[in-house]
Amino acid sequence: MDISALLTSAGINIGICVVLFSLYSILRKQPSNVSVYFGRRIASGRTRRNDPYCFERFVPSPSWILKAWETSEEEILAIGGMDAVVFLRILVFSIRIFSIAAVICIFLVLPVNYYGQEMHHKEIPSEELEVFTIGNVKEGSTWLWAHCLALYVICCSASVLLYFEYKSITKMRLSHITRSAPNPSHFTVLVRSIPWSQEESYSETVKKFFTNYYASSYMSHQMVYRSGTVQKLMSDAEKMYKMFKTVAVDPTCNPKLMPCGFCGESTSDFKILSSEVDSVKGKMNLGDLELATEKKECAAAFVFFKTRYAADVAADVLQSSNPMLWVTELAPEPYDILWSNLCIPYRQLWIRKIATLIAAIVFMFVFLIPVTFIQGLTQLDQLSQTFPFLKGILQKPFVNQLLTGYLPSVILIAFLYTVPPTMMLFSVVEGPISRSGRKKSACIKVLYFTIWNVFFVNILSGSVIRQLNVFSSVRDVPKQLAKAVPTQASFFMTYVLSSGWASLSCEVMQLFPLLCNMFKTFVLRMKGDSYDGTLSFPYHTEIPKVLLFGLLGFTCSIMAPLIIPFLLMYFFLAYLVYRNQILNVYISKYESGGQFWPIVHNTTIFSLVLTQIIALGVFGIKQSPVATGFTIPLIICTLLFNEFCRQRFYPIFNRNAAQVLIEMDRQDEQSGRLEEIHQQLQTAYCQFQLTSHDICKRVHDNVQDPESLKPGKELSQANELWSPRMNCGLFL
Amino acid sequence: MDISALLTSAGINIGICVVLFSLYSILRKQPSNVSVYFGRRIASGRTRRNDPYCFERFVPSPSWILKAWETSEEEILAIGGMDAVVFLRILVFSIRIFSIAAVICIFLVLPVNYYGQEMHHKEIPSEELEVFTIGNVKEGSTWLWAHCLALYVICCSASVLLYFEYKSITKMRLSHITRSAPNPSHFTVLVRSIPWSQEESYSETVKKFFTNYYASSYMSHQMVYRSGTVQKLMSDAEKMYKMFKTVAVDPTCNPKLMPCGFCGESTSDFKILSSEVDSVKGKMNLGDLELATEKKECAAAFVFFKTRYAADVAADVLQSSNPMLWVTELAPEPYDILWSNLCIPYRQLWIRKIATLIAAIVFMFVFLIPVTFIQGLTQLDQLSQTFPFLKGILQKPFVNQLLTGYLPSVILIAFLYTVPPTMMLFSVVEGPISRSGRKKSACIKVLYFTIWNVFFVNILSGSVIRQLNVFSSVRDVPKQLAKAVPTQASFFMTYVLSSGWASLSCEVMQLFPLLCNMFKTFVLRMKGDSYDGTLSFPYHTEIPKVLLFGLLGFTCSIMAPLIIPFLLMYFFLAYLVYRNQILNVYISKYESGGQFWPIVHNTTIFSLVLTQIIALGVFGIKQSPVATGFTIPLIICTLLFNEFCRQRFYPIFNRNAAQVLIEMDRQDEQSGRLEEIHQQLQTAYCQFQLTSHDICKRVHDNVQDPESLKPGKELSQANELWSPRMNCGLFL
Repeated sequence: MDISALLTSAGINIGICVVLFSLYSILRKQPSNVSVYFGRRIASGRTRRNDPYCFERFVPSPSWILKAWETSEEEILAIGGMDAVVFLRILVFSIRIFSIAAVICIFLVLPVNYYGQEMHHKEIPSEELEVFTIGNVKEGSTWLWAHCLALYVICCSASVLLYFEYKSITKMRLSHITRSAPNPSHFTVLVRSIPWSQEESYSETVKKFFTNYYASSYMSHQMVYRSGTVQKLMSDAEKMYKMFKTVAVDPTCNPKLMPCGFCGESTSDFKILSSEVDSVKGKMNLGDLELATEKKECAAAFVFFKTRYAADVAADVLQSSNPMLWVTELAPEPYDILWSNLCIPYRQLWIRKIATLIAAIVFMFVFLIPVTFIQGLTQLDQLSQTFPFLKGILQKPFVNQLLTGYLPSVILIAFLYTVPPTMMLFSVVEGPISRSGRKKSACIKVLYFTIWNVFFVNILSGSVIRQLNVFSSVRDVPKQLAKAVPTQASFFMTYVLSSGWASLSCEVMQLFPLLCNMFKTFVLRMKGDSYDGTLSFPYHTEIPKVLLFGLLGFTCSIMAPLIIPFLLMYFFLAYLVYRNQILNVYISKYESGGQFWPIVHNTTIFSLVLTQIIALGVFGIKQSPVATGFTIPLIICTLLFNEFCRQRFYPIFNRNAAQVLIEMDRQDEQSGRLEEIHQQLQTAYCQFQLTSHDICKRVHDNVQDPESLKPGKELSQANELWSPRMNCGLFL
Repeated sequence: MDISALLTSAGINIGICVVLFSLYSILRKQPSNVSVYFGRRIASGRTRRNDPYCFERFVPSPSWILKAWETSEEEILAIGGMDAVVFLRILVFSIRIFSIAAVICIFLVLPVNYYGQEMHHKEIPSEELEVFTIGNVKEGSTWLWAHCLALYVICCSASVLLYFEYKSITKMRLSHITRSAPNPSHFTVLVRSIPWSQEESYSETVKKFFTNYYASSYMSHQMVYRSGTVQKLMSDAEKMYKMFKTVAVDPTCNPKLMPCGFCGESTSDFKILSSEVDSVKGKMNLGDLELATEKKECAAAFVFFKTRYAADVAADVLQSSNPMLWVTELAPEPYDILWSNLCIPYRQLWIRKIATLIAAIVFMFVFLIPVTFIQGLTQLDQLSQTFPFLKGILQKPFVNQLLTGYLPSVILIAFLYTVPPTMMLFSVVEGPISRSGRKKSACIKVLYFTIWNVFFVNILSGSVIRQLNVFSSVRDVPKQLAKAVPTQASFFMTYVLSSGWASLSCEVMQLFPLLCNMFKTFVLRMKGDSYDGTLSFPYHTEIPKVLLFGLLGFTCSIMAPLIIPFLLMYFFLAYLVYRNQILNVYISKYESGGQFWPIVHNTTIFSLVLTQIIALGVFGIKQSPVATGFTIPLIICTLLFNEFCRQRFYPIFNRNAAQVLIEMDRQDEQSGRLEEIHQQLQTAYCQFQLTSHDICKRVHDNVQDPESLKPGKELSQANELWSPRMNCGLFL
């Protein structure tokens, strides 16, 4: 691949991006697409819907870019929560470090690479990409100090930036804990594995235990119930009812485009159904408080404490002399809880964890078998054998370039789209108790998967059978990587262009929801505002993606510096696009409070160390003992730096500091809010959305601020009240 | 090596053992050796010293064996503490599991091995040892199910035994916590990394912090002081004074055997010196309470709480939003504390840990270079080249056998004796706060070292340069091990005979103290009762030794079953010898409360899994897919079992259960002892032995039970009062 081919590829991709972004800026102005592009605004009840039908609606404009650029971090924090800020910080960090890397690599390393060997240089456009990599530097060259210096500069500035990021995010997390509205999860401990006794119910056992050992701070508790068959039927019925209701909104069928098979006869059916559901619901409304008490108790309960500190202590301390009983941990936020997983017996959890770990590893290694099989089919000679009539087209150089450059990575990307759902499935089976925990677990799995299957397998030349063989000889790893990375650099550049930029365009276009919406609007003739899917930000797919590009950037930086401009462009675009999406599309119903940052930090350190190991291999191949000697202390220092950060910052992401909690408790006590908080606490955790709605309603009638929850409002809005951003209304 | 050579070797070793044990039974009856063989009894003040000078004293008798055998576990627990019981449990476990292994291996596996190939068998004494190993079974033999069955039986019974041992030791630990006399360490939290402020002293900062956040449970605190130069001089002077005093006890020199250079002129010097020290001490007695307050404070303090539960909570919870400040942990027992390490800044600790880890690993790999060099010198041809006059002797078969069989392992053993002190040094540098923690850390290091350098390096044929190469190919490890273990079995048998049995004889003889004592008695003409070195049980050398033999037993059991009888004999002897030593020789000043058991458990699981992996390799070589298939689930089950035990039992060894502590607090409160405990608590931790002795004395005068600490008693006895076994007197 030469420079001109690379530029062609870049040109095509830039063109595609410009077209898609322009298309987006038009589409987002169409009223019919409001539900696709402004989901968050709809959910928070702020949409301007009735735009005049003017010419401006069909002219692309960069206003969304300006808006995304201008929004301050405080606004993002208020809208998207801390996780969104952390995610954007990853991008800011990447932009910063790769700007530094770009300066040093393009002005120092690139010339050294280019003039590394005495050779006749062609004109630059027809120069091979290999000439710009470290592979072009001749063995024993004294100019390798330039690479070593660049490595030092990159690693040191990355460490400094990482340190300050970690520090500021830790600070942000602390102020997230202290300054946010009183959070029921701070007062609540989730107790699992309550011992079974024949004489008492679980509830009585819990009460006895906590009144005995935590008499001064224990307030009350709430059992977790096994969702029985009746419960499931009820919620299914509710779902169906809602679904049919939206269809039935438009009972007078009006077939404009085509005769609609759904309408006509079936309308009456819908009506019958919905009225049936209504009557079922009516009956249940009478008896469901009784039903709730009859439900089967699980060996898990939420225990409410009078102060945050007491809850923290109860969560931290080992309760019983049998560590498998009375397992306590701080409860997740009400909206974050995965109720279905709370009933999983605690004894099963470690088996589930091991099983999913093994399953994920097996999936990681087996994944490439179908992919390479299909990729193999796209090899040109294979293709022309299978489809002889294509022979003519395939021999054209442009088509040839397009196919060899694109098709394998497109197929890989297509298959990669199946990975996050699979990993999410594994994470569900694992049995986490919170949605954020599930997402974090999936994020880690997807991250390992991506790094292994995109980076390593491609570097180690992709053959599935050789995957394991390559690592059978541990000592040669640096050398093998050193040989492979510069030669694979051109693939990674096209990967950044195709996968990176294209994925951003797809992200901003929201292709799948857009198509669904179009299908609904033009085929099903539904109104555009029947928005039901409130998407939450897919951290588990986006964080690994961004981190992978970071890994590519670090490892290629001094080997093949040409990749950095493309990466920088990707990070800039990503910064704008994701800001826009956070502002407009995604809803943050729950958040982890920056729990993703330690993952990011560790991965970046991993990338740095990998870069250093590869550099070690390269310097070894190039026979530069001085550079090798200087790289080894760098590795040690990087690892020590990581250990320091782990000691200094990580505990804050794991546990709450007593000092902070006690101060918060005191403030609440002094301001007299504690009483109010205690009252609210009892209703914070509602297990069954259908019945709990009613239970909550009844209790809320007693609350002094009845404004906050009007019976007429939609369920989604009622739930929103407990979302981290808006729970002040109910809770204060 | 054939059977007769093995039996010769065994015969020699049995002979040596019998002679040494007889010698021991005589030596222990000599009054001059009381300090060597009855150190514990002297320390606890119970010795019958004036035996009549009768004939019986020179006749070997097995009375000590009977005594060691008859002592019950309760007595051992009372005398040697829980650690001693745990150590003996390792031996009991080994005896049990290898009895089972002996039965199945000798009656099932050994015949299969022996008749594994159609061959002409010689008479058994001249049969090669290889004939009894699995190497003799022909490839594809259907009889390999016998080995697989034996493996299953051994692994399953080992798991069952391990489970019950872990369970009973956990129970023992719990009752050790609950039933022991009130332990000051339960009420005390060690705070480190107290933030420095310009306005206040550390002591004031501590007081402010804990009265602020732990107002209801905080009682008082005690700062840790940096031991300054004056302090060091004082303690040195004290030591010298004591040393010279014992020499000066016998001022009228009486040269019987030889003219003693120490006496005569120098006596007066001693007197001058000792009187000087006395006067220095006299001056200091006046001012040392003032001196104590002038000492430089460290950023560490002991904080005393009113209840055990409060202390536990304060130790468990993260105190500050900066995890590197206000680091709390439960304090060790008073006699267990390593005062010198308390002043190490907390920030240094992680660097120290990493540094010592790296140093220990380097030591592990570099250790063998000098050893193999010297071992190489002992090769017969090398020897006869270097010393041509030895040629005649070396060609004799007996000498030949002795040298090739013995000398390498004797050299290895001699070098191995330097390992525990080195590892102990590393552990000291690491900065543990307690003696038991230091010993545990050293134990782990010695264990890794022993397993690597005795087992793996010998199996992988010992060449230092090949050590790393062998493991460069990860996938072949099982096969390489499978090839090596049966062939190295004869070496391990001689290792058990020479190292195992001989080390037990050395242990019971206490060679080094015996020689020191003899030197003192016959050369320096000192009285035998000037006993100063109170030895504590060297768990860090003995546990790795026993575990190594366990590892040898497991890995060789189905490969070369002939080793098992020798091992069983070793474990039986060890059981008797160590019981005797615990009863008579070693003092348990401090203990870890069974902290060694998790190490033992994990090592045993490691041994089992290693055995299974080796078996996997062997079944692979012997082309028995069925046996291979049956082994893989066994590995998985063993690992799952380990994980289960880690979940079920390990937390108890790490933290205290709230339930237990609260119950203990309540009992004390109801019985009214709490007040008394609080009073005692203030004086429990005395940093400076010299001055603290006086401080304690003054405080103790106020205590209701002045009997317990008479001023005239020896320091060692006063200290003994705080030893786990005897602190009831002072503390209750």
